[in-house]
Amino acid sequence: MLKYLKMITEENWRWDIVYACINILCLTFVIAFVVVQLVSLLRKDDIKKRSMAIMQPERKFIPQARMTDKQIGDVIESVLNYRKVFSIKKVPYHRLRLHDDEALLRSQLFYENMKMRRCVQEFSPRPVPSKLIQNIIKSAGTAPSAGNLQPWMFCVVSSHELKAEIRKIVEEEERNTYSKKMGADWVLDIAELKIIWSKPYLTDAPHLIVVMKQIHLINDSNELTSTYYNQISIGIAVGILIAALQDAGLATSITYPLYGGEKIRKYLKRPLHEEVFLLVPVGFPAKNATVPDLKRKSAEEIIRCYS
Amino acid sequence: MLKYLKMITEENWRWDIVYACINILCLTFVIAFVVVQLVSLLRKDDIKKRSMAIMQPERKFIPQARMTDKQIGDVIESVLNYRKVFSIKKVPYHRLRLHDDEALLRSQLFYENMKMRRCVQEFSPRPVPSKLIQNIIKSAGTAPSAGNLQPWMFCVVSSHELKAEIRKIVEEEERNTYSKKMGADWVLDIAELKIIWSKPYLTDAPHLIVVMKQIHLINDSNELTSTYYNQISIGIAVGILIAALQDAGLATSITYPLYGGEKIRKYLKRPLHEEVFLLVPVGFPAKNATVPDLKRKSAEEIIRCYS
Repeated sequence: MLKYLKMITEENWRWDIVYACINILCLTFVIAFVVVQLVSLLRKDDIKKRSMAIMQPERKFIPQARMTDKQIGDVIESVLNYRKVFSIKKVPYHRLRLHDDEALLRSQLFYENMKMRRCVQEFSPRPVPSKLIQNIIKSAGTAPSAGNLQPWMFCVVSSHELKAEIRKIVEEEERNTYSKKMGADWVLDIAELKIIWSKPYLTDAPHLIVVMKQIHLINDSNELTSTYYNQISIGIAVGILIAALQDAGLATSITYPLYGGEKIRKYLKRPLHEEVFLLVPVGFPAKNATVPDLKRKSAEEIIRCYS
Repeated sequence: MLKYLKMITEENWRWDIVYACINILCLTFVIAFVVVQLVSLLRKDDIKKRSMAIMQPERKFIPQARMTDKQIGDVIESVLNYRKVFSIKKVPYHRLRLHDDEALLRSQLFYENMKMRRCVQEFSPRPVPSKLIQNIIKSAGTAPSAGNLQPWMFCVVSSHELKAEIRKIVEEEERNTYSKKMGADWVLDIAELKIIWSKPYLTDAPHLIVVMKQIHLINDSNELTSTYYNQISIGIAVGILIAALQDAGLATSITYPLYGGEKIRKYLKRPLHEEVFLLVPVGFPAKNATVPDLKRKSAEEIIRCYS
């Protein structure tokens, strides 16, 4: 800089001013560039740290990416993995053998049963046999998953105290979201607004199933490995869970925990490689339960045929 | 540059070389910065374009975010929307009334039935009654969804020609992914590798249900509106679809289209606000179908009780 100021006083000052300006501009850009790159680097580190979240320090994380873009000839593990694909033993498939008419009748009955399902928020205090809960979760566990990794864990919360704590976390989140989204809740009657964010059914239902999605799995060597398409796999598992609940005459009103999932995970002492996916309160519906008068789309609105 | 070269020949050459070097370095950084920023800008534009994807130019997109962070007193729509929450008519809930023993028996039978389900890749050419397919999709359509938006569309592809085209797209994607991930496929027997990426069941099955996820919906005023948690909602719907298929004695082997979804969407002439979620081939299983000898996790491995 001093160099340029000195130059300005000399005879060829005009070009030097231009050069100095360019230099200052360049410097600004360089600083901006470095700052931007540093910020993005720190962010990446943060994401990495999160995804690498390990419960116990001795567990090593093996990123699947390490396997990619390598030549098979160089990496013996790839070859071994590749061979494993073919070494899976095939067994006969035990199938239901139904006549067309029987299949049709069953599909009609299944639909009629599912059609009756609604999100119910009024639960009966009638206790639910634990064997029933177990059968329903076992049914959910039959869901297909990418690579048969079964990236799920179902936490059945039955104690009133624990349910109340989870309800508090969810309501807090709901209230924050609603007051932010809807704006100035003081404009409206607080008592009325309460109806929106209040979730009494989370404690009214005898059981609250907290569905955990496993982002990573722990292998036999106590290392964390990746799971694929876990969001899709666990969504399907919850679908089967809901079908099983309905088939057994139980009710639910699935709840998304918004940003309260992390608090709930910690509260239930679940490991860092799990994430709260959904809350599924479970119980028999109250005797005179009511549901919102909503309509489902017709078959014509959801089916397109290409034949 | 010339300026600096000239300077070097002068008496105070050492400092000038340093300055020149710094300038060249700065210039390199500036170019890198500009390139990085431009690339990220173009990418953002691309993402924006995709998410704003509109089928017909006259359709306006109303981002839900416009509603957020506003004071209710200022925005009449918020108040109207808020009132709507309470104006939803409540109707009695029609429920299954089952005795505990009956519920237990049903849950046990449901589980036994679901337990038999496996991903089957060997299909019988036996035709599937279209009424059966319809009942199964109607069952999937009973799934709960965020805001009752039902963000799904089920495309039933039955023509062999169309199925073959979709199979081609998926196999192309699979082959690319495998050759990239596994590396040098020339190292291995091509014929063997074919077993991995080849998807004959996509054409063998009499029907191929292409499950579309609706990122946006079109309202009565022909405008695009957002859907929430559509990934979760449609995952649940596919779960019920799979349960319904199994209950009717049909088989499937759900397939993820990898990056081929966009091509399939275009091929089926589905609008831009839809996205291929999964491919569900549907048919009766082949008489002597086999399945991989995989194990499911036990109840103890997927259930945790908090009581």
